[in-house]
Amino acid sequence: MPEAVETFDGWYCLHDFRKVDWNAWKLASQEERDQALNEFNELMQGWEEIESNREGSVGFYQMIGQKADLLIMNLRPTMDELTDLETAFNKTKLAEFLIPAYSFVSVVELSAYMAKGKDPDTDPEFQARLKPVLPKWEHICFYPMDRKKDAVNNWFMEEKDERGRLMYEHGMTGRKYAGKVRQIITGSIGFDDWEWGVTLYAHEMIQFKKLIYEMRFDEVSARFADFGEFFIGHRKTKEDLNQIMAL
Amino acid sequence: MPEAVETFDGWYCLHDFRKVDWNAWKLASQEERDQALNEFNELMQGWEEIESNREGSVGFYQMIGQKADLLIMNLRPTMDELTDLETAFNKTKLAEFLIPAYSFVSVVELSAYMAKGKDPDTDPEFQARLKPVLPKWEHICFYPMDRKKDAVNNWFMEEKDERGRLMYEHGMTGRKYAGKVRQIITGSIGFDDWEWGVTLYAHEMIQFKKLIYEMRFDEVSARFADFGEFFIGHRKTKEDLNQIMAL
Amino acid sequence: MPEAVETFDGWYCLHDFRKVDWNAWKLASQEERDQALNEFNELMQGWEEIESNREGSVGFYQMIGQKADLLIMNLRPTMDELTDLETAFNKTKLAEFLIPAYSFVSVVELSAYMAKGKDPDTDPEFQARLKPVLPKWEHICFYPMDRKKDAVNNWFMEEKDERGRLMYEHGMTGRKYAGKVRQIITGSIGFDDWEWGVTLYAHEMIQFKKLIYEMRFDEVSARFADFGEFFIGHRKTKEDLNQIMAL
Amino acid sequence: MPEAVETFDGWYCLHDFRKVDWNAWKLASQEERDQALNEFNELMQGWEEIESNREGSVGFYQMIGQKADLLIMNLRPTMDELTDLETAFNKTKLAEFLIPAYSFVSVVELSAYMAKGKDPDTDPEFQARLKPVLPKWEHICFYPMDRKKDAVNNWFMEEKDERGRLMYEHGMTGRKYAGKVRQIITGSIGFDDWEWGVTLYAHEMIQFKKLIYEMRFDEVSARFADFGEFFIGHRKTKEDLNQIMAL
Amino acid sequence: MPEAVETFDGWYCLHDFRKVDWNAWKLASQEERDQALNEFNELMQGWEEIESNREGSVGFYQMIGQKADLLIMNLRPTMDELTDLETAFNKTKLAEFLIPAYSFVSVVELSAYMAKGKDPDTDPEFQARLKPVLPKWEHICFYPMDRKKDAVNNWFMEEKDERGRLMYEHGMTGRKYAGKVRQIITGSIGFDDWEWGVTLYAHEMIQFKKLIYEMRFDEVSARFADFGEFFIGHRKTKEDLNQIMAL
Repeated sequence: MPEAVETFDGWYCLHDFRKVDWNAWKLASQEERDQALNEFNELMQGWEEIESNREGSVGFYQMIGQKADLLIMNLRPTMDELTDLETAFNKTKLAEFLIPAYSFVSVVELSAYMAKGKDPDTDPEFQARLKPVLPKWEHICFYPMDRKKDAVNNWFMEEKDERGRLMYEHGMTGRKYAGKVRQIITGSIGFDDWEWGVTLYAHEMIQFKKLIYEMRFDEVSARFADFGEFFIGHRKTKEDLNQIMAL
Repeated sequence: MPEAVETFDGWYCLHDFRKVDWNAWKLASQEERDQALNEFNELMQGWEEIESNREGSVGFYQMIGQKADLLIMNLRPTMDELTDLETAFNKTKLAEFLIPAYSFVSVVELSAYMAKGKDPDTDPEFQARLKPVLPKWEHICFYPMDRKKDAVNNWFMEEKDERGRLMYEHGMTGRKYAGKVRQIITGSIGFDDWEWGVTLYAHEMIQFKKLIYEMRFDEVSARFADFGEFFIGHRKTKEDLNQIMAL
Repeated sequence: MPEAVETFDGWYCLHDFRKVDWNAWKLASQEERDQALNEFNELMQGWEEIESNREGSVGFYQMIGQKADLLIMNLRPTMDELTDLETAFNKTKLAEFLIPAYSFVSVVELSAYMAKGKDPDTDPEFQARLKPVLPKWEHICFYPMDRKKDAVNNWFMEEKDERGRLMYEHGMTGRKYAGKVRQIITGSIGFDDWEWGVTLYAHEMIQFKKLIYEMRFDEVSARFADFGEFFIGHRKTKEDLNQIMAL
Repeated sequence: MPEAVETFDGWYCLHDFRKVDWNAWKLASQEERDQALNEFNELMQGWEEIESNREGSVGFYQMIGQKADLLIMNLRPTMDELTDLETAFNKTKLAEFLIPAYSFVSVVELSAYMAKGKDPDTDPEFQARLKPVLPKWEHICFYPMDRKKDAVNNWFMEEKDERGRLMYEHGMTGRKYAGKVRQIITGSIGFDDWEWGVTLYAHEMIQFKKLIYEMRFDEVSARFADFGEFFIGHRKTKEDLNQIMAL
Repeated sequence: MPEAVETFDGWYCLHDFRKVDWNAWKLASQEERDQALNEFNELMQGWEEIESNREGSVGFYQMIGQKADLLIMNLRPTMDELTDLETAFNKTKLAEFLIPAYSFVSVVELSAYMAKGKDPDTDPEFQARLKPVLPKWEHICFYPMDRKKDAVNNWFMEEKDERGRLMYEHGMTGRKYAGKVRQIITGSIGFDDWEWGVTLYAHEMIQFKKLIYEMRFDEVSARFADFGEFFIGHRKTKEDLNQIMAL
C-alpha cells in the first residue's frame, strides 16, 4: 500500500483575485474614490504591521489579462483570521468597485522530504519557510494543480519511494532557478478545489515561463500534473494603487 | 453480478450556500438591515427549537473564500419540510441580500456495513446517527463526491465483498481521527448531481486537510473517488450574524 | 454491424424549469402579483382541459435546491404546440418573475422491446403509454442521460441482442419498484443535448434514491450510463402556487 | 501517413441564435416595438432580395426550449459580408431586445467524395450545393460536431480509404431519409470551436430524431463522433415575427 | 529522459477580445460617443508610433460571431508595458461600452529548431521574428492550444529527436501555405491557461480553414494537439472603428 508522506503545515493563506468595475469607479464621486483608496491604504498598513510583527504576511499585486486586475494575498496563523480579514475587506469602500474573480484557500505546506535531518519544529530555517514573509520580488505567478489519478498514472497509487525519487528529480530542475525564481507551495486538499497552489516570484517575468516549461518535461509533471488557471502580475505597494486607479 | 449494499436512510438534508451582496446590503437602510437580522434570528430560533425537540437539526456557518460566505444546513424527517423551509427563507428580508452560491440535496445514509450485528430500526446509536444533531464543533468542511465508473476502475462493477474490504480499510483511516474529525455522510443518488455529500466537523481546521490527504492514499479513494467542490468555514451562532453583517 | 432498435414515438414533451426572482416579486405591487397568479391559474386551467380531452398532459411541481424552484411540464401531439405554449408562457406576467433555469425538449419513446407481441399502432395500453397522462403522484425526479461511446464501453457498438439482454435485466430491477416508482422515458436524440430524459414519480421521495442506487449496479448503467443534472420536487396544483408565492 | 481529403468550400455561413428579453420588450413602448418589427421586416426583405439574386441565402426560425428563441441564418460569398450583416443587425432596434445565445461561423463544405466524376468547379448541381438556397421546409435542427482524436479512435490517424468507406456507409443511412430530411454540412475548422456544423431540414420534426438515432449506430458516428449542443425549431416568415412578439 | 528544447522569447503579447455593449452605446449621447472614438483614435495613434519606432507592434480587428466583436493585440518588450497599456485602455471612454470577452497573455516564441546554424541573438531575420511587426494582411485567426499529456500520447514524454521530427514534418505542411498564411507563435506556459497561442494572417479567409484542416492530419496534431476556442476576424484601421460603431 502506498503510504502518505508526512507534511508540515504553516500559515494559512488566502489568495483573493478581483477585477475592477471601471464603470462603477468612474460613476463614483472624487470623494468616494478618495475614501476608498485611503481606507485601503490603512488596511494595508495594518497588514504590513502584522507582517513586521511576524504574525502574518501580505502581498499586493496588479495582474494582467481579463481574468483579474488585482491580487491580495494574506497569510495568517489561523484560518479564522483570514475569514475575518476577507469579511473586513468586503465591507470596505474599495470592495464596492471590485468584482470577485477567483480565490484560493490553502496552507503553507512542506513535506518530510524537505526536513531531512532537521527537527521541523525547531529548525529556524524550516520554521521560516512554514511562516514565510512573502518575497518582495517584482513579479508573481500563481496556479493551482492536482496530481493525476487516472487508470495509468495515479500518483496516489505510486509507492512512497518512487514518489520521493520523482519529487527529488523535480526539485533538481527547480534548483537551477535558484536566485531567479522563488516558490511557495500551499496545500489545499480539503480546503479548496485543487490539491496544491503554487505561488512563484521572479525578478524577470520570462523566468516563470522558462522554469515551468522545463519542469513540464520532468517525469512527475509529464505523467502526473493537472494544472488549473494561471495568473500573473506585478508586485505593487499600497501607494501604487492610487496610480493604478487614477482616472 | 455485483450486488447493491443495503443502505439505511435517515433525515433529509439541505446544504444552502449563499454569497453576501455587500453592495445591496450597504444601500439598505439601517432599519431594513435590522429587520433582516431580526427576522433571521427568529427563523434560526425556530429551527433550534425543532432541534431541541429532536424533529430536525440546524447548523449555521461562515465560509471562507469567494465561493460562499454563509452556509445554512438543515435536516428534517421529510423532504417536503426542507422545501418549505427553503421557500420560507427565500422570502425573508435577509435573503434579498444573499446570492445563491451552491446547494446540495441529500439524505443521511448509513450502509449495512455499519449495522453489523445491530437491528438498524431499533438500535439507539444507529438511529441517532440516522437522525443526527449536527455537531457544535468549530469548523466545517463540505464536498460532494462520486465513485468512478470508467473502463478500468468501475465501483459499480466491483464485487460486494471487495467493496466491503475497501470501505473497511477506508474506515480504519477515519478511525485514526476519532475525536478530531466527525463526519456525516449523506446520499444524493437520484437527488442531486453527485452521489454522496461529505460533511466534516473539526476543532482544528488543519485536521480536515490531514484526514483527507491521508485518505487520498486509501485504495478506495485513489482508484474510485471523484471529488466536487470543497467548501470550508466556521460554525457561528445566530447572534454572530449581527457582527458578520455589521457595517 | 450493430443495428438500431426501432423506437415508437408518442407525444412531444417540454420540461421547463424556472427559478423565482424573489427580489423582483417583492418589488411588484399586490395588484401585479394577483394578476400574475390569476393569469397563471387560467393558463393551467386551459392546459388541464387539454389533458381532460386527451390532447396533451400537464404537470406542475415545486422543486428543492438552488437549481430550480418550479417545473412546468407539458406534453402535446406536436412540437409546434409546445413552442407556442412556451412563447405564450413567456409573455405572461408570472414569467416576468421567473428566471429560466433549465429546459429539456424530447418525445415520449418506447422501444420495440416493449411492444413484444403487440401491434404498437393499435394496442390500447401501448398507445396510452405513448400519449400518457402524467401521474398525479406526490414527488417527481428528472434527469437526462446518455449512453457511453468510449473506446471500451460503446453502447452503439454493442450488438442488438446484447443491448436487449442488458435492457431486459435493467427492466427487472425497475419491476421491483412497481407501485413505488413510475417512469416516463423521453427520447431527445436530435432534439436536445442528452440522448434521453428520465422522469420518475413516487409517493415516497426515498424510493427515487433506492431505485436509482440499485440500478446503478445494473451492468447497463455501470458500464454505459452517463448522467446529467438531477432535479427533484413535489407535485403542486395551480392553487398551491398562491401559497408558494405568498409574501 | 493519412492524407487529408480535398474539400470544396462554398458560401460562408453565420448561425445567429438569440433569446428574447421579454421583460425589456414589455417595458418598451408600442411605438418602439413597432419600429423594431418594421425595421427587422425591411432587413429581412433585403436579405430575401439577395437570395432572389442568388447572392446569398437567408433563413429565419423560432426555436423551442430555453437555449434560444430565434435563429437567423445567413449565407454569403464572403465572410466580410457576414461580419457586416451581423454588425448591422446588432445596431437594429430589435437587437436591443435579443440576448446573444449561441453563434456558429462556418462555410458550406463538400468533400471530394461527393464530386466523383464531376468537375466541381463547373458542375451545376455541385455548384448549387456549394451555394445553396436554404430549404423552405417546416423544421430545422442544428448541431456542431467533432471527429474524435483519442488514443483508440482517432479520425485523423485513419487512412483515407478507410475514412472514405466509413463516410460512404454513413451516406447510405442518410439516403434512406431522402425526401424526409435535407442536410447542409458546413466546415468550421479554423473558424469556430467545432469542426463541422450540421443543419438539417424536415417536414416532420420526428424525422430528425429517427435519422440521428439511426446514424448513431453507424460505425463512423459510434466510434468517431463528438456532438455539441442541439437546437431545434420551426421556419418562420418575417411576417410571423409580428405574431411571435405580439403582447 | 526527454529533454526540453531551448526556446527563444521575444516581445510580450496581449490579445484583448471585447464585445460591444450596443444597448449602452445607443444610450450614450453623441458627444460621449465622439469622445470615445476620438480618444481611441489617439490611443491607437500612439501605439502606431511605437510600432514605427520598433518598440512594439499593434493590430486592431473586427471579429465575427457572438464570441467577440473587436480584438486589440499589442506586443511590447516587457510585460509591464502591456499591463499599463491594458489599464490605460480600461480607463478610456470606449472601454465603458466594451465587455471583456477573452484575453490571452503570452510571449513571441521561437524554438531552437528554427535557429539552425544562426546566432539567435544577432541574426537579423531571427531577431525580426522575435520582435515582429504584425502583418497588415486582411484576415486574422487566433486559437490557443496545448500538447496532450495523456497515458498514450504524452508530448512531454516523447524524446527530443522524435519531437523534432514531428515538428519538422508539421513545418512542411505550413510551408505549402507560404504567401497565403503567416503565423506568429506565442508561448504562454506559466502565463495563461494554454501552452501556446497561434495567430494566423491571410489574404483569403478560406486559407485558414485549408491550412488547419490539412495540418490536423499531421501526426503531431492528430496525436498531440488540444485546441481551445477559435476566433476569426478582419484587420481594421483606427478610422474604420468610426464606421463600425456608427449608429
